[in-house]
Amino acid sequence: MSTGHHEASWRLPESNPFANTDVEHYRELARIAERGTFDSIFFADSPVLFSDVGRRPAGSLEPTVLLTAIAAATSRIGLIATASTTYSDPFNLARRFASVDHVSGGRAGWNVVTTAGPDAAKNFNLADQPAHAERYDRAAEFLEVAFKLWDSWEDGAAIADKAAGVWGDNAKVEPIDHVGRHFQVRGPLNVPRSPQGYPLIVQAGSSEDGKGLAARYAEAVFTAQQTLADAQEFYADLKARTAALGRDPAGLKILPGIVPVIGSTEAEALALERELDELIKPEYARVQLARTLRVAPEDLPLDQQLPADLPDEDEIEGAKSRYTLIVTLARREHLTVRELIGRLGGGRGHRTFSGTPDQVADAIQEWFEGGAADGFNIMPAVLPSGLVTFVDHVVPLLRKRGLFRTEYEGTTLRDHYGLARPGGRAKSLREATA
Amino acid sequence: MSTGHHEASWRLPESNPFANTDVEHYRELARIAERGTFDSIFFADSPVLFSDVGRRPAGSLEPTVLLTAIAAATSRIGLIATASTTYSDPFNLARRFASVDHVSGGRAGWNVVTTAGPDAAKNFNLADQPAHAERYDRAAEFLEVAFKLWDSWEDGAAIADKAAGVWGDNAKVEPIDHVGRHFQVRGPLNVPRSPQGYPLIVQAGSSEDGKGLAARYAEAVFTAQQTLADAQEFYADLKARTAALGRDPAGLKILPGIVPVIGSTEAEALALERELDELIKPEYARVQLARTLRVAPEDLPLDQQLPADLPDEDEIEGAKSRYTLIVTLARREHLTVRELIGRLGGGRGHRTFSGTPDQVADAIQEWFEGGAADGFNIMPAVLPSGLVTFVDHVVPLLRKRGLFRTEYEGTTLRDHYGLARPGGRAKSLREATA
Repeated sequence: MSTGHHEASWRLPESNPFANTDVEHYRELARIAERGTFDSIFFADSPVLFSDVGRRPAGSLEPTVLLTAIAAATSRIGLIATASTTYSDPFNLARRFASVDHVSGGRAGWNVVTTAGPDAAKNFNLADQPAHAERYDRAAEFLEVAFKLWDSWEDGAAIADKAAGVWGDNAKVEPIDHVGRHFQVRGPLNVPRSPQGYPLIVQAGSSEDGKGLAARYAEAVFTAQQTLADAQEFYADLKARTAALGRDPAGLKILPGIVPVIGSTEAEALALERELDELIKPEYARVQLARTLRVAPEDLPLDQQLPADLPDEDEIEGAKSRYTLIVTLARREHLTVRELIGRLGGGRGHRTFSGTPDQVADAIQEWFEGGAADGFNIMPAVLPSGLVTFVDHVVPLLRKRGLFRTEYEGTTLRDHYGLARPGGRAKSLREATA
Repeated sequence: MSTGHHEASWRLPESNPFANTDVEHYRELARIAERGTFDSIFFADSPVLFSDVGRRPAGSLEPTVLLTAIAAATSRIGLIATASTTYSDPFNLARRFASVDHVSGGRAGWNVVTTAGPDAAKNFNLADQPAHAERYDRAAEFLEVAFKLWDSWEDGAAIADKAAGVWGDNAKVEPIDHVGRHFQVRGPLNVPRSPQGYPLIVQAGSSEDGKGLAARYAEAVFTAQQTLADAQEFYADLKARTAALGRDPAGLKILPGIVPVIGSTEAEALALERELDELIKPEYARVQLARTLRVAPEDLPLDQQLPADLPDEDEIEGAKSRYTLIVTLARREHLTVRELIGRLGGGRGHRTFSGTPDQVADAIQEWFEGGAADGFNIMPAVLPSGLVTFVDHVVPLLRKRGLFRTEYEGTTLRDHYGLARPGGRAKSLREATA
């Protein structure tokens, strides 16, 4: 979120409440993160205006536009945009990501989402969202089409022989002639193969279908995990699924979110967290929680625990894993609705952690060394201040402990993640005939 | 085109044949044009890889990405991207243009095209293109939806009352609930109203349907006109159609294309034009011409005139006005296929003009004062050198003659065109109840 991942962050005196449409705000965030040698920056997105605009800054810049604008202000940091396979079309989207990869010199990533909820569907000629399994089936085919389009130009297809008057080698640019259940796409793509070949493929759904898609295609997974045990279980499960499909599990990086609230003492950090939580207006959040849980707001009295008779995850066609995470969190910790709203408002399901820089570094190290994470999605409660504090006070500790780079070694996002550049069509053809 | 509007420009020693994916090339062009106080820069586009890649630089960066990348390197010049209403979706595209308008500080324009030809359709689940009239019907509804989405947020909808904890005024952000023949879109848009309200609306088709769409919606029209008489007739016709719909004709700017080839003497300019024409390989161009004319390439011997029995414009479902322009040009000037190919290769149907800076300025002044143009789409044969020459040698003459600005007076693209900012939903509602 523009002013921070805590939903009340915009109310702090330091926050710019119009940052959501201010490209300079995002350029500043990117420069700070690049100073901290982060792999990448990432923006969540959905093709629908969700939530009451009274509640918090609403509406945002389209992510491929935003990241292109940021690219010019940075030189190394990766740029990950969220885009929906349910409400986009593979030809246009594949071209847009290839274009972002070209203009950024190989720093593009795509967070592949299927977009939960009936409201988005209503912006795209539909009365309701396609069923969960159908969305994931489309997502898989969408990715297959995108891969084919990105490979429709071989590397080196442009010869540019001025003397002979031959610019490109027609044998190296071919239609894909894809015919599938969801898409018929002829190709080739109308932009040459980009520096990374493909953008980095990121996935963030943790439902069964989501994990299946991630194991098959993703190179990085963002996930919300509240406890070390849950994170370890998720990590082991997803790595095993990846291996079972014949992929090297090291080729898929698992990155739990963490919302750090940092103080020079633990008491100071907790005071900031409390200050933020007290700025949450529960009436807004209760409406949203009720929608997620498929109950009426009046069935969620603020000082009682969740009702006992909620639907099973199986019955949910929306964001299944988020639903389960919320219900599990509330039941495990016996939270009242008000307490649950505080927890969700702080990190929207992600782990919040308040403490000193040393404590935050310890928390990160524990999960990293404990087989729960290959890295983290750092989601400061307040932006830009929380990011500045993290970069200036936590990153140096992680570097001193040998846990994090001191400078960028490569130039592309794939370099930062230690992932190879996909070989392209020529290689695929060789593999197919080997 | 990347290296210039002459199709053989990439073969010159000075040209960078990989400029088509080099964002620095385009940033340089934009800075040169901004130095010349141009209203805007504009890129044609189609969601299909057209032509043989052997022929000339093929593939290009997606225009909204490209223009966003250019925005950061400039501060005043307008940024016009082409996007297809036939192969896009109104919610995503309206948001993308609003986003470009936000990140550029109000410099976005949209060249609305319906995309002719069966090849593009095959990239989007279709076996063939929708009929011409159907594409224009969809385009009109697409624009109506986009206008509603851009107005779904009133200006000032964001209050950002930190003390009260109220960010936005819900009464000023409303669904559009559009239900039409082509689209059902609930809204509201997921980005606040942008600096210009709407991007500048540009149109470039000159068929009957195209002129109808332009008269109703466009604020600028790009057009290919070969002679003063034709341009005057087009100008008068389109202004009359605009007035007939109750619009002020001054609110629609007509901008014929001109491909200047400039030399310090007329002979030098003609030599450069000849050098370029001799670099055209006619075999590539003949295939494309045959496709446009719906005949076989072997029916077009290079040293004969066009066959007598070509179809009427009525039978063409593709780019009708381009078809007619080509046939009319060839018949009027009794051109052989080889000569026609030279003319089309130079300006692809636009007027080519070779001469000294004074002669080019005269040509521009004649059309401008003769009721044939409100301005021009300057399409240098070679880029960047032709643009540098135009800015350094023709623009000063136009300024001295009082025909062109010496500095930018406003900051938005609408300012440069002298067009008002659309009033938005509040104003529309007042008009509806007045």
